[in-house]
Amino acid sequence: MKDRFLRALKKKPIDKTPIWLMRQAGRYLPEYRAIREKAGDFLALCKTPELACEVTLQPLERYALDAAIIFSDILTIPDAMGLELSLVENVGPVFNKPIKNISQIKQLHIPDPYDTLSYVARAIKLANNELNDLPLIGFAGSPWTLAAYMVEGRSSRDFAKIKKLAYSEPEAMHLLLEKLSKSVTSYLKMQIEAGANAVMLFDTWGGLLSQPNYTNLSLNYMEKILRSLEPLGVPSIVFTKGGGMWLDKIARIGSTGVGLDWMTDIKVARQLIGHKVALQGNLDPAVMLTTKTLIEKEAKNILDSYGMGSGHIFNLGHGITPDVPPENVQYLVDFVHAYSQQFHDQSTN
Amino acid sequence: MKDRFLRALKKKPIDKTPIWLMRQAGRYLPEYRAIREKAGDFLALCKTPELACEVTLQPLERYALDAAIIFSDILTIPDAMGLELSLVENVGPVFNKPIKNISQIKQLHIPDPYDTLSYVARAIKLANNELNDLPLIGFAGSPWTLAAYMVEGRSSRDFAKIKKLAYSEPEAMHLLLEKLSKSVTSYLKMQIEAGANAVMLFDTWGGLLSQPNYTNLSLNYMEKILRSLEPLGVPSIVFTKGGGMWLDKIARIGSTGVGLDWMTDIKVARQLIGHKVALQGNLDPAVMLTTKTLIEKEAKNILDSYGMGSGHIFNLGHGITPDVPPENVQYLVDFVHAYSQQFHDQSTN
Repeated sequence: MKDRFLRALKKKPIDKTPIWLMRQAGRYLPEYRAIREKAGDFLALCKTPELACEVTLQPLERYALDAAIIFSDILTIPDAMGLELSLVENVGPVFNKPIKNISQIKQLHIPDPYDTLSYVARAIKLANNELNDLPLIGFAGSPWTLAAYMVEGRSSRDFAKIKKLAYSEPEAMHLLLEKLSKSVTSYLKMQIEAGANAVMLFDTWGGLLSQPNYTNLSLNYMEKILRSLEPLGVPSIVFTKGGGMWLDKIARIGSTGVGLDWMTDIKVARQLIGHKVALQGNLDPAVMLTTKTLIEKEAKNILDSYGMGSGHIFNLGHGITPDVPPENVQYLVDFVHAYSQQFHDQSTN
Repeated sequence: MKDRFLRALKKKPIDKTPIWLMRQAGRYLPEYRAIREKAGDFLALCKTPELACEVTLQPLERYALDAAIIFSDILTIPDAMGLELSLVENVGPVFNKPIKNISQIKQLHIPDPYDTLSYVARAIKLANNELNDLPLIGFAGSPWTLAAYMVEGRSSRDFAKIKKLAYSEPEAMHLLLEKLSKSVTSYLKMQIEAGANAVMLFDTWGGLLSQPNYTNLSLNYMEKILRSLEPLGVPSIVFTKGGGMWLDKIARIGSTGVGLDWMTDIKVARQLIGHKVALQGNLDPAVMLTTKTLIEKEAKNILDSYGMGSGHIFNLGHGITPDVPPENVQYLVDFVHAYSQQFHDQSTN
């Protein structure tokens, strides 16, 4: 069943629960590390469509995953805006020219994705040609999450700079979020036109906001993006890490599915929003570092908690980490497919 | 009213909402920085009762705070267990001898607080003598949070080591948590005997667990500690950062009050658990970096959200950060006292 992922997202009958993993094309795979070494660095890999396509497909060659996600990074947009992204070992992404004041925000241009981000469209086209009807997921960061990186200059413990901006200079903050929303919208439109079969918004830092700020600075802008994409008819998934308290609000912004982090109880989430949206998640990524017995136990627990019927896409509650043994992924994928059959009516397939 | 904090914690009538701030004795105060320089380093400051007493009292000399909290660190217990704590600039606390295997856990001794941690009791006695009946709060880290630091060796982004231990070697994990629970219990008993009028458990990392793991690895052990302290009749506050989804569970473990992080809506929290426990919190610490106008707006919002009656202790949703202007704290404390009078029946006082 090639369309298991898309059918589950739309809650249509399926034979097995589909599975893919956030960061499935990544450092835990030796073949990924080989290509990355060849490319020189992470950004060069993102910007070389042939190589980005190749690493996108790598996990699909090993495992019976139900979807590919295009290999890229959420920070390609700020990079295209001129902030100069680099990836520093043991620090993570760093912008050489972070946003420091309102005049910089005013001067920021909204990138034409067909110009400065066309390498992503090219990688999507190449990957789609190889995927044999298996769905390909496009993605972008949420405006708030992008803004947080752009103002902090890098990941942060308390995000004091961006929060200070948000509280003290709301007009500047909203101007930045507005520009990012437009950028994300046209970027995702390009990805869809290039062949992405679904899109996902990663709101990695939304969970660090108070509830009113979350609505005002993150959720509203994600809603704006989703409403603009609606005419294209492509399903979408929204994922706010740490957003478990606000699921009822997240489920109302027009996405097809909602991603759950591992702190959230998927049974509670289904009761709360499962009638409105599909749910994606939510195995603790740390479980992947342990044994097959434990992976089975915890995956079983999630599948049992979701229960009968379509509408669940199995995933981790956050990206897979570099030190996961590849054979553990094999075991998880096969177990989810085998065990989940009891939750689906086989006669309808 | 000297006992405003303790009365609010027990939901007795008060004239104004009490306020204190997590990490109120800290680096944002120039007089703290002066003493710390004199002491040499952070740990020396903790371990010198006269200096620890002095910094405990510093914020009370500036502001009309309703409680003092003894100046110390949650990592004094693992330090007393022999893990050799040091504080590294730009990294934070680091253990020179982190826990790496089960045999190390088996060999860990439960410290006699009257021996290796008596400096804390001494600082409490000294501070109490100076406080003129203003309450003094004692504290400790939750067993899970202490274990996380002890196994990771320092703060971490994903806490992969401790989680791997928790999943793979549950017996070792529980042995460690059991030893830490006993250590925390006797440590808090000593603090109470020395004169602490209330105690607080800081569960900084509990919010990174899945719900079943949170119950199993963090909440159950905090409950055990609180039940052991019950005969002493001293009120208690439990604070799990990121625990907003589990308030109903947190409110059932026997604490007098529950601390709220800034992501949690205090109005929702009061509806959910306000009949069982007092609530402490929950201004976003980043607000303290802004202006008096904004501090007033956000503090007002929290006081309005809690509404009428006793049972609210104003605080931040996490510790105050080093770059807060001291005059902003002055403004907040005075504003909370002035504005909150309308929420309390002045005729009963």
